[in-house]
Amino acid sequence: MSTNPGLPAVEPRTGLPRSVRVYEVAPRDGLQAEAAVIPTKVKVELILRLRAAGLRTIETTSFVSPRWIPQLADAREVTLALEPGPGVSYPVLVPNEKGLERALAAGAREIAVFASATETFARRNLNRDVDGVLRMFEPVVASATAHGIPVRGYVSMCFGDPWEGPVPVEDVVRVSLRLREMGCGTISIGDTIGVGTPGQVTRMVEALGGAGIPPSQVAMHFHDTYGQALANVYAALSTEIAEFDASAGGIGGCPYAGSATGNLATEDLVWLLTGLGIDHGVDLDALVSTSLWMAKHLGRPSPSRVVAALAQREQ
Amino acid sequence: MSTNPGLPAVEPRTGLPRSVRVYEVAPRDGLQAEAAVIPTKVKVELILRLRAAGLRTIETTSFVSPRWIPQLADAREVTLALEPGPGVSYPVLVPNEKGLERALAAGAREIAVFASATETFARRNLNRDVDGVLRMFEPVVASATAHGIPVRGYVSMCFGDPWEGPVPVEDVVRVSLRLREMGCGTISIGDTIGVGTPGQVTRMVEALGGAGIPPSQVAMHFHDTYGQALANVYAALSTEIAEFDASAGGIGGCPYAGSATGNLATEDLVWLLTGLGIDHGVDLDALVSTSLWMAKHLGRPSPSRVVAALAQREQ
Repeated sequence: MSTNPGLPAVEPRTGLPRSVRVYEVAPRDGLQAEAAVIPTKVKVELILRLRAAGLRTIETTSFVSPRWIPQLADAREVTLALEPGPGVSYPVLVPNEKGLERALAAGAREIAVFASATETFARRNLNRDVDGVLRMFEPVVASATAHGIPVRGYVSMCFGDPWEGPVPVEDVVRVSLRLREMGCGTISIGDTIGVGTPGQVTRMVEALGGAGIPPSQVAMHFHDTYGQALANVYAALSTEIAEFDASAGGIGGCPYAGSATGNLATEDLVWLLTGLGIDHGVDLDALVSTSLWMAKHLGRPSPSRVVAALAQREQ
Repeated sequence: MSTNPGLPAVEPRTGLPRSVRVYEVAPRDGLQAEAAVIPTKVKVELILRLRAAGLRTIETTSFVSPRWIPQLADAREVTLALEPGPGVSYPVLVPNEKGLERALAAGAREIAVFASATETFARRNLNRDVDGVLRMFEPVVASATAHGIPVRGYVSMCFGDPWEGPVPVEDVVRVSLRLREMGCGTISIGDTIGVGTPGQVTRMVEALGGAGIPPSQVAMHFHDTYGQALANVYAALSTEIAEFDASAGGIGGCPYAGSATGNLATEDLVWLLTGLGIDHGVDLDALVSTSLWMAKHLGRPSPSRVVAALAQREQ
């Protein structure tokens, strides 16, 4: 009888960050893309289990109109049910000033806004052009920062756009600079369709740095649709990026059938980081158990390779 | 309506090889691990389609006893049906002298032998200790090289063993050196259970180089069981490794249920290499079509992320 190792051997590399912030997106980015509508109490349990597994930054919901994302219609209830503690933050996505008011009223203490590097996605996702989206966020970010609320700025479609094809690095840099000038403390660079490869990642980090946005202010948000997410993480680590978005169990962002996936699974990221000896604070066993439990609620197996491999151990 | 890009944007990186040899293992390593027994004519068609897709090195079968691997009982028929051409080679796996005789009689012109870095796997897979396996191969490799037949030496369980846990790098180096001294031209370093991470890869290449086996004589054989394969490929490329084993559609090596997988899918590797501007010679569309066709014969969808993503385009 073989024994599943459960954790990788540790072999650090020089030149990489010593610790990484894992920015967990399953409850928001994950669940908004799933067909199943999850009851509020299950969402809250998911978030508390993620926290118990050691995740310290968990994006919990979005205060977008329930007309657009019915899966997150309980944003207020979820936020009211949670209590940020020392070292734990629960950012929420906010689309506009009304969303910010609702988020603050429910007790949110950290927010994120979601911009686009491409015109087509801005139009389709936010019904405005790229600059219109940025103008919409200006008063939101100003108001939040006036309340002492940290703001994260997402930039989507940074490495390729399904309608426009390749995305000029300069467009990503321009949108990132605008978000930072507004007051966003971290810029999350998103490969929304998962087509990027490591050369693009390295060039992007260099271009952002050249424009005055250092790696310490940048997070990377990779999707695993083409299997490239962890190669891109490794490339990003080599350029001193130390914050990565991931979704427990690979929840959400599953536009394709079968085994294809959208979001990078937190477990797969944690396996990589553990092997490299990089601190992340996550208890992999507790996280895998959470994802297996959540997969039952979602009615489909986790697309995470690590979850699938470690699940065998429990059978 | 979105358009699937079909290929990644190209962004080369300095310090990486300009071209890579993709060593295709689906017909042998892939099919030997699948439950379905595939008819000989389908195997031959698979190999010819892989060749037509641009793959230049295709390991076609194994001359092991059909008692051990009934899926490859038609090794002679498959080999007789194929004609290596200019720039195309069809290595076959050979377990012992009898297997070599049969392979040569069927027209094989390139072979591989399969050793282990760990005692437990050697015992379980080959019913000998590590040194016993190596002694068994000595006359095989001597005889092959006397016939002018190039020999590749596989070393399995190089980054972790399901029974023994972590594997000392020195053990891998020792077995690799023995294989090279016998006459193996290329050593394929296998992460048979897919647990390795990039720090281990880099350290392994450095240790092999320190022992006198340069990157030009080393191939890497990664499994994607824990999702780490492409991160490891990227780490290996950064150390000048320029030969990678992969299996079209991720066929085979699927010890776990669900979406978990064993072999690195050739399509996922090709996406990475294309994005990095590294020559590989493979036509991705033709390869994906081949894997979709083969998936029907295997009775299950391809675990390759790229195949799953690109398959949507055809629907």
